[in-house]
Order: sequence, then structure tokens, then C-alpha cells
Amino acid sequence: MKQEYFERKDKELFCEGVSVKAAAEKFGTPLYLYSASHIKERYNNFEEALKGYPHEICYAVKACSNIHILELFAKAGSGFDIVSGCELRRVIDAGGDPRKCVYAGVGKSAEEIKLAVENEILYFGVESVPELERINAIAGKLGKVARVALRANPDVDAHTHDYITTGKSENKFGLTFSQTEEILKNFPKKYPNLEAAGLQIHIGSQITETEPYRTAVLKAAEFVKKLRAQGTELKYFDIGGGLGIVYKDEEPATPAELIKEILPPISELGMTFVCEMGRYMVGNSSVLVTKVEYVKENPDKTFVIVDAAMNDLIRPALYEAYHDIVPVEEKDGTFVCDVVGPVCESGDFFRKDCRLAKVGEGDLLAICSAGAYGFTMSSNYNSRNRAAEVLVEGDEMTLIRKRETYEDQVRNEKTCR
Amino acid sequence: MKQEYFERKDKELFCEGVSVKAAAEKFGTPLYLYSASHIKERYNNFEEALKGYPHEICYAVKACSNIHILELFAKAGSGFDIVSGCELRRVIDAGGDPRKCVYAGVGKSAEEIKLAVENEILYFGVESVPELERINAIAGKLGKVARVALRANPDVDAHTHDYITTGKSENKFGLTFSQTEEILKNFPKKYPNLEAAGLQIHIGSQITETEPYRTAVLKAAEFVKKLRAQGTELKYFDIGGGLGIVYKDEEPATPAELIKEILPPISELGMTFVCEMGRYMVGNSSVLVTKVEYVKENPDKTFVIVDAAMNDLIRPALYEAYHDIVPVEEKDGTFVCDVVGPVCESGDFFRKDCRLAKVGEGDLLAICSAGAYGFTMSSNYNSRNRAAEVLVEGDEMTLIRKRETYEDQVRNEKTCR
Repeated sequence: MKQEYFERKDKELFCEGVSVKAAAEKFGTPLYLYSASHIKERYNNFEEALKGYPHEICYAVKACSNIHILELFAKAGSGFDIVSGCELRRVIDAGGDPRKCVYAGVGKSAEEIKLAVENEILYFGVESVPELERINAIAGKLGKVARVALRANPDVDAHTHDYITTGKSENKFGLTFSQTEEILKNFPKKYPNLEAAGLQIHIGSQITETEPYRTAVLKAAEFVKKLRAQGTELKYFDIGGGLGIVYKDEEPATPAELIKEILPPISELGMTFVCEMGRYMVGNSSVLVTKVEYVKENPDKTFVIVDAAMNDLIRPALYEAYHDIVPVEEKDGTFVCDVVGPVCESGDFFRKDCRLAKVGEGDLLAICSAGAYGFTMSSNYNSRNRAAEVLVEGDEMTLIRKRETYEDQVRNEKTCR
Repeated sequence: MKQEYFERKDKELFCEGVSVKAAAEKFGTPLYLYSASHIKERYNNFEEALKGYPHEICYAVKACSNIHILELFAKAGSGFDIVSGCELRRVIDAGGDPRKCVYAGVGKSAEEIKLAVENEILYFGVESVPELERINAIAGKLGKVARVALRANPDVDAHTHDYITTGKSENKFGLTFSQTEEILKNFPKKYPNLEAAGLQIHIGSQITETEPYRTAVLKAAEFVKKLRAQGTELKYFDIGGGLGIVYKDEEPATPAELIKEILPPISELGMTFVCEMGRYMVGNSSVLVTKVEYVKENPDKTFVIVDAAMNDLIRPALYEAYHDIVPVEEKDGTFVCDVVGPVCESGDFFRKDCRLAKVGEGDLLAICSAGAYGFTMSSNYNSRNRAAEVLVEGDEMTLIRKRETYEDQVRNEKTCR
């Protein structure tokens, strides 16, 4: 296992002190099983790397937004990177501080902006001029001053999947440097209800090297100097998120390595450092536990059919993402197979032509590295109930989301007349 | 508009007798708006084409599974193609007849099989030997005889997207002809609690030509003759689903054309005809109505940012699917733009580089052909509440699914301790 806090004891897989099999027996499958210690350690890795320097670590809620997971971050003193009004409500319900929230996204609605202004979030990551105008108008109506960080697009290629690269100029995100410069001229006059609080960059997701970050930060630091020369002082330097994790054989930079590379140009400017990591924090905190329903032998292929499906974890179908799959109990021998789900679609697969421990009906498998963009992207496709989520710490396990029921699925259809 | 029952009156888009704008004002956006008359007409097209010949038209619930949509089919006398236990429960709640249900899918659980046997469904579409054994055992325990149709893979390429082609031998679905033959030898002896009721083929989805169907049917008909010579009589000839619709400029075969091509070899065998259409029935029954939040001008691109997103309709991101987009109220002039949603991911787009009516903030757009695999694949990604669904018939509109709320989203997280 490449996931810390998941290891084998006597051939059996454990999450911290809890037997994965015992968890599956207690809560059923498919099951998202999370390690709290992993999450705390990951958060601390950033805290350590930034010790002594003014900073705000904002966990990207969209990666895994369960309220009880957010609570772990809130208790550690984390800030939050939110992308919708409901994410802000989740943070507040988890005991998080809205004043430590940064709010990203190209399509913030008036209602969402109002909620965020009322809750005095740290700043809005602003993606367009019309958005700036809307926030200014809403803040004015509420008699408040809202802080904004302009998201400026460094036009850096982070070498990642098309769907998760965000720092190139053809993406929908952010503003160009020259647009940003233009906006900041006469800012207080034009936007009397806004305070220009920071500059934000964001180059993508699952980035394993420090180099794209360093390139982007250096570009942005030069730009900050230019803005200063024009009389604009910004407090926050927000590098966005995107630090990658090990899914297969990646060797991602550590927070210490990343910070060492990128902090000097920021510290030279005396700005507060902000980052918005999601996948790094939670990606390897979880496995999706699933039961083998059938082993099906075709003349030229073996299919291991499990009770989890693309509705539970869509990353293989959507991003061609790699997720390791390991047996919960070690088996003798291996075979080559496709691991697929019950959904009636050829896109419903987890691995193709992989060498797997020779499991049979009723055996359990762990689909690895499922903590980020796993449960949060799950659906009811094929009228399947969404999985339960369980949080482990030491030898304690806590249900943090009940398995969905048929009644949950149809509630809003049955009560609408 | 290429969708019957959606047309412009005085520059304004109507669904049957209802103004789309009025529906959006009443129920908010994003909104799935369905035409009941479209669905009824589509069902009748198959009824007409099969008039006088023994048949069962089974609507594929997975395409759009709202109970109130299922009710339209139930009232028309339709059968149902289901793929999960919860889909069967939906059919029953909609007043559908479980004895007209055929049950497909490679991963049927013991619990789901039990529910289906108890409800005496028409037959199980069986995809593997272990599944056959499981159904036999469960039926035995319940003291019932369960009907099965073997899903035999005709190895025909239906020229469609990899994720929705299903009739090729490397797919997880079905059995080979020789496996099927083997199973049917000594069937009553080996499976005393099962009745071999039919043969099922299924070659894919969004198939526009009759030729792949005809090829598959001819192959299967020859196979049925071979089985007869060996003493096996099957009652049902199930061609599966997959008939395509117009998304852009396709010219799909009509049910009349399809039936004319494929019924003769089936009628020659004297078997009952079964089909399992989903997309054909509902794909063009609906538009996803969305509001423009912002128009964002980048130096080299214009983005129309709407309040619907990939969590509401994932087909463009997942299948690179084409969905036409039209303004709800006609506008002067056009521009070239990307139509994107608010989700923080570059994969969140509906159209790229398309020529669109020159809409502005607050204007409404209709994302066309959204009835199949639209709402059923929707998720809460980015903690977004799922859309409302409204059914129109004549000049009446009925809410058939309430818009989701934050409380709905977090209910199973808050009540689990």
C-alpha cells in the first residue's frame, strides 16, 4: 500500500487500528473508509513547512466535503477554499471560521455572494470584471466592505489532464495580468465597497513537480512589483492548490520541498502566503471498500464484478484516472482481469487488464487513493444508493455519512405534489 | 429546435403550451423541463410499429427514472427494463407492473434478485453462469420458478462511443453464443428453479442505423434455430435497446423502419418481440433550462457562464456529447463562445467555440436533448444542489422533483451520530 495509515497485519488490511474487513462487516459495502490521522498529518506537513511565516492554509472543500472531515480541519485551525454557497454552509456547520474562507469559481450567484459577504469571508477569488461589479453592488447594499483577491492567469502549463489544468489562457478561469492591472487602476474609486486584498494564481491539479509552481510564482511576484510601482499594495499571495499525490508511481514534491522553492520570492515581498490544497490533504486518506459480486470468465477475458460502480467513483471513466486495487485479505495467486461495476455501461470500470490477487465471490477489495473527488462526485446513476462514509482514528470507527436509502432517493419526487 | 413539442412562438421558446421562461420564473434554474406528449408519442410510435404482433415494449428506466415519468409509461401499458433493485421499486411506486419488467446488469446482488423474484418479474437478463446459479438458488429458497433470458453477445460493432457500445466480445456484458449453447444443454436438470424464457441481445446505445440491428438479429435468429434443433424452445426474442435520437444532424431510423427490417426473422420463429428503449423514448423530451450568470470576455475567448454545470449534465465532459444550446428568448446578433458552468474544473463545459445568440447576464438558455442520462447522472459535486424537474402537458406544468436543498445534501451526514 502506498497510503500511509493503511497497512497489512497478518495478511489483513488495516486502516490505522481498524480491520477493513470488520468495518465492511459493520457498515456494509461499498464503503468510503477514511483515516483521520492521515488527514491531520498532511495538514501538519504544511503547517510545519510554513512555520514562522505569516500564512493561511485553506483546505479545498470540493475534494471531500463531508462535514465531519471538515471538522478535522477546523479543529486544526485550517482555513477553507470554497466554491459554492453550500460549501460555506458546510464549513460553518463543521465549526470552521468563515473569516478564514477564500471563495473561488467563475459562476458565483448573487445569493451565494450575499451569504459570503454576510459571513465576512477572508476574500473572494475574483475571476471576471462582471463578478467584481456584482460583489461590489451586493457589499454596498449590505453596508459592508468585501475583500477580493484577483485571480491572475500566469499562463503556465502544469503538465496534467486537460480537465484539471486551469492556468492556461484558453481556460475559463482567471484574468490576464494586463486585465488585472487595468482593474487595479482606480480600484477604490470604481469599487468603493471592495478592498483589493490579494493576488491569486492557480495552475491546475495533481501537479507533482515544483517547477510549474516556481515559474508561476516568479511571474506573479514580478507582477506584484509592477503593481506596487503603480501604487497598489496587496496583502495575500495565494498560490492556489494542486499539489499531487501518489496514485501509482508518482514522486510528488513534499510541502517542505515546495515551500522551500516558492516562499523566498513571496517573503521578499512581505506578503501573507495562502495555499488551497485539496487532493494533497485527503486523496490518500481513503479507500473505497467493495465486495466481489461475481467472477465472470469470458473466453478471452476475466471480469471481477464488484458492488461499487462509476456512480460511486467516476474518476476512472471521467479522467482515465489510475486507482490501485488491493485485496482486503491476501490471497494465493493472481490473475489478469478487468475490475468492473454493476452499472449498465462499458464506461463503468475501475481497472482494465490488471494483475490482481485471485479473489472470488464475497471477497473484499480496496480501491485505493479514493479520498479526493471520490464521494463528492458520486451520483444515483442506475438508481443506486450512494455509499456510506466511515472515519477511523486509532481503533475507533465512526459513521460520518449514513448509507443512502431508496426513500432518500425518491423523497423529493414523492413530496412535490 | 429539433425537439418535437418545443417550439418558438413570437420569438419565445415553448414546451407544449407552456412558456419556458414562465416555467423558469416559477421553479427557478437550473431546471429539467419535460414534455409528456413527446414521451407518449414516442411510446406510441413503437406500439404502432408492432401492432398485431406479440410484443413487450420495456422502457429503459436508467435513461430517466423519475417516478412521474415512469407513471406515463405505466399508464400507456409499457413494460420496463430495470438495472437495479431501486429501479424496480421506482416502477412499482409509479404503478408499473413488475411482471412486465426485464432485469439487466452484470452485478445483481442477492438482495436485488430476491426482490425481483418475489415480484415475479418477466425475466432476468442473465449475463454470466455464476449469476444463473445465484438466481436458481434464491428462487429455490423462495419456492418460486424464475424466468431468465440469456444475454448472448452477437459481437457486432454498433459504431458508437466506446463507453456505450456493449455488443463486442471484450465488453463485460453477456455470454458468447457457445457459452449460451452450453448453458442450455441440460438446463432444466441443472437449474430446476429457472425457466429458460428468452434470448437477449444488446449492441449499444445511440445507434442510428438499422443495419447493426439487422446483422445482430439475423445472427441471433440463426442461433435460435440451432437451439431448437437441440430441443430448446425460447419464447422471447429481446433485441435490447439503443435506438438513437437527433442531437445534432443525425438521421436515426424510425421505429417503423427498424421494426420493418428486423421483425421478419423474429416472426418467422414465432417468438414474442421485446425491446428496451430508453434514449429514444425520453432523450428529446427535455431541455435543461439555465440562466446566464456572467458573460466573461477574455482577450482570445468569450465565456458564457451559466448556472447549470457538469454536476447537472455530465454528458459533454464524460462522452464528449453534443448538446445544442438555444436562447429561450430570441436575440439580435450572435457571437462565438464557450458555454461553461460554475464548477471549478476545466471539464465543466457544455459547448466549446460555438456560435450562440448574443445573450447577456440574466438571459435564459435551453440545453437541448437533455432527457436521457441527464438528471439520472447528476451529482452534488461542488456541493451544488441538484436541479428541479418539471413535467409539462398541454398548458399545465407539474413539479415532479423538488429542487434539492442544503438540508437534503447533509441530512445523512448530520443524523449519523
